[in-house]
Amino acid sequence: MSLLRRNSVLLLCFFLLSVAAFCEHTHTYTDLPRSLIIELPQKLELESDSLEVRLRCTGWRVAGEANNLSPWKTIPEECVDYVKEYMLGPSYQLELQLVSDEAARYASSVDLNEYEDGMDAWIFDIDETLLSNLPYYAQHAYGSEIFDHNQFDKWVIEGMASAIEPSLKLYNEVLRLGFKIFLLTGRSEDKRDITVDNLIKAGFQKWDRLILRGAEDHGKTAVAFKSEKRKEIVEEGFRIHGNTGDQWSDLIGSFISVKSFKLSNPMYYIS
Amino acid sequence: MSLLRRNSVLLLCFFLLSVAAFCEHTHTYTDLPRSLIIELPQKLELESDSLEVRLRCTGWRVAGEANNLSPWKTIPEECVDYVKEYMLGPSYQLELQLVSDEAARYASSVDLNEYEDGMDAWIFDIDETLLSNLPYYAQHAYGSEIFDHNQFDKWVIEGMASAIEPSLKLYNEVLRLGFKIFLLTGRSEDKRDITVDNLIKAGFQKWDRLILRGAEDHGKTAVAFKSEKRKEIVEEGFRIHGNTGDQWSDLIGSFISVKSFKLSNPMYYIS
Repeated sequence: MSLLRRNSVLLLCFFLLSVAAFCEHTHTYTDLPRSLIIELPQKLELESDSLEVRLRCTGWRVAGEANNLSPWKTIPEECVDYVKEYMLGPSYQLELQLVSDEAARYASSVDLNEYEDGMDAWIFDIDETLLSNLPYYAQHAYGSEIFDHNQFDKWVIEGMASAIEPSLKLYNEVLRLGFKIFLLTGRSEDKRDITVDNLIKAGFQKWDRLILRGAEDHGKTAVAFKSEKRKEIVEEGFRIHGNTGDQWSDLIGSFISVKSFKLSNPMYYIS
Repeated sequence: MSLLRRNSVLLLCFFLLSVAAFCEHTHTYTDLPRSLIIELPQKLELESDSLEVRLRCTGWRVAGEANNLSPWKTIPEECVDYVKEYMLGPSYQLELQLVSDEAARYASSVDLNEYEDGMDAWIFDIDETLLSNLPYYAQHAYGSEIFDHNQFDKWVIEGMASAIEPSLKLYNEVLRLGFKIFLLTGRSEDKRDITVDNLIKAGFQKWDRLILRGAEDHGKTAVAFKSEKRKEIVEEGFRIHGNTGDQWSDLIGSFISVKSFKLSNPMYYIS
């Protein structure tokens, strides 16, 4: 083998390894193990085309998390792959963990002995906060299809949603610290039993009140409904220290908590 | 040249191009033109080490934009490179543009003819909202050094801060639509003249009121100071439709605007 040829092969090997390292860096899907070499050309073309798209979709996602966006019905068409990768890859889990850690730090900083009246409260939303509907949204293009209440209800009454693990950890910590837990959800009263079953099955063992939309709440925005319910809680004498939700409509409005924690959700928007 | 050798060379060329494409994808600095081939091995090693760091820093940045973080004095040490890349690369500009576009869309949806009393207001913060202090922060490790008031004041009185272009565009649009513009800044009164000079030099030609911290405002948090000033504005009869700032303390508290627009800022946090 000539020197040039040997060098070429060595260089080739080096670059194969280099590209493999890059691939590992940029495509850490949990559901898409890939044969790197075979799929590389196609993948590269895709990546090269989609740099601008990736930046735009990141910007769009961050703008949503910062509550800068107008209400939207579906995710931008160009962001379907981005949102899928985000939800199934490590980023979503890591961000949930980071925010729950912040919330737990705040919870443990609250002086629950100040009044000793058992009126220190924490509110949790349910969907995409305690329970994950990701299997449903994976079947419905990650938020790029218009939301279908009937289809979603079918999924809900299966009662198969699993716990969002960082939230379960926070939940147990908040319970342990002695907060009263209020579950405040946009689900309607007719889903009470299946919601209770699902929560218990997912590991949420104990709460003080589960508040769902009653007949009188239909037609109200989530902001209005949840503000009203918080008003009732506050008027009973509770101090709402923390509130955890994946929608800004869980957190804003009136009678807001001392500190709110917005969990990531790039798949849908509720006003 | 043998077939194998010719194929090796062809493959090598292909992978060189592939790696170049990847490099272009992942490292779009504006200030760091790089000779891709020579620096590649070093760069790859760095990237491979820093995947976890990049995910953590993205999560930290998003959590900040969603107002989930406790007050912080410096950025996480491991995120210095990340924040630098973010600020100097295309992402920061793209996100500013996206949020300003949203704000302009909202501004144009407000019916300014409803009252015809000239009392429709829009508030802008100044630093990192209208004017960019990036040259200062680039000299001070992008927020990883504890903030030094004296050093920063020296930069401010140079009056050299440039316009944040997407904000200038929004500003001119908001003016054109007929809003009254209030500039509400944490800068103190002794910076009034240089601030006016700098704003005009940067292209902000006209506003209705420039509100700085007076002697009586020292020691107040930004949330308290800005809420008080908004209270005065509202009590004069103005309707605050929009508020644009890079800090949550520009936007939250009392007498908040109908719609707030949080511009990205991963470099510092003001309570």
